[in-house]
Amino acid sequence: MKLYDLELSGNCYKVRLFASLIDIPLDIVPIDFMQGEHKKEAMLKLNPWGEIPVLEDGSVILRDAQAILVYLANKYGGEAWWPSEAHLQADVMQWLSVASNEIQHGPNVARLIKKFGFESDLTQSLERSYKILALIDDHLAHHNWLAASRPTIADCAVYPYISIAHEGEVAIDSYSNIKAWMNRLEQLPNYLSMPGN
Amino acid sequence: MKLYDLELSGNCYKVRLFASLIDIPLDIVPIDFMQGEHKKEAMLKLNPWGEIPVLEDGSVILRDAQAILVYLANKYGGEAWWPSEAHLQADVMQWLSVASNEIQHGPNVARLIKKFGFESDLTQSLERSYKILALIDDHLAHHNWLAASRPTIADCAVYPYISIAHEGEVAIDSYSNIKAWMNRLEQLPNYLSMPGN
Repeated sequence: MKLYDLELSGNCYKVRLFASLIDIPLDIVPIDFMQGEHKKEAMLKLNPWGEIPVLEDGSVILRDAQAILVYLANKYGGEAWWPSEAHLQADVMQWLSVASNEIQHGPNVARLIKKFGFESDLTQSLERSYKILALIDDHLAHHNWLAASRPTIADCAVYPYISIAHEGEVAIDSYSNIKAWMNRLEQLPNYLSMPGN
Repeated sequence: MKLYDLELSGNCYKVRLFASLIDIPLDIVPIDFMQGEHKKEAMLKLNPWGEIPVLEDGSVILRDAQAILVYLANKYGGEAWWPSEAHLQADVMQWLSVASNEIQHGPNVARLIKKFGFESDLTQSLERSYKILALIDDHLAHHNWLAASRPTIADCAVYPYISIAHEGEVAIDSYSNIKAWMNRLEQLPNYLSMPGN
């Protein structure tokens, strides 16, 4: 199973982290992001969005980190990580949307600006970051894990960009419940850290 | 089953549309958006995000339109609308992420600015709109439905803000594959339109 990957991408890290936690091997195919390899024909055939990660498992080709997490959990991770019962699955799904929306347009964008020099609205990305961090911190005051009272792909989708939020100069030290949750996640068997962190 | 609803919200419309397609009754609870009812204590207890829709089904309370679609499909809609097989489910999931990310920050934001006077970056929202519309149109050149070769919650999550994109002055007339797909969706039994459209 191939993961078209960029080491520094938080979205790729979501997949590497979860694959490690459920102990499945990935054949990592590094993409030369600086040379725009993800925007060239071979990669656009796999993903017209021109983005990574892309997962290739036999004839199955998937873009979008959240969709890849659902696939891996459904096929290889089992009930623990992606519950089949409707209200628990929807609970996890709420957080996959947070990863696609609030986290993507908050801490991810702040990091793109500060670490990689992307042009975007820093003030807006910081406002979004602190708004969602406060909501997550409040939620974790009463929950050990984001959804379903156990570690799920919800945690794997939300944790990566929070764990590297400092690279976007988003300060998370005052969010004690988030810090405690990160620590719990980092203690899971087969936890894998982001390179350089 | 209660839906805390705003008639003019495309995110609420996603839920109303899907509930109609699978023929389940919703007890609609209108929220006075202009009076900020969604930001007041009673609603914040149901959804700390201060957003609608919110679904209440017995003891189950859910925010986020995509999560509500997953819940309704899993519990009431059956295999057709939300496949259980890993690669098909992930195929649908790719489009739930598109609804949370590209559609939310594209056509939805353009409409918030043009129809409701929200302050945001119109140029960016239009760029995002036309980028995602082109990708969807290309995809629909070879597919009748967004995912899994049949109508699923992917279509119900992506269609609403495209069907009202003109209210954000996003022009969809040149996207012939999107127009044909919209027409197919509008022919489904129990299709429900957005009020005023």
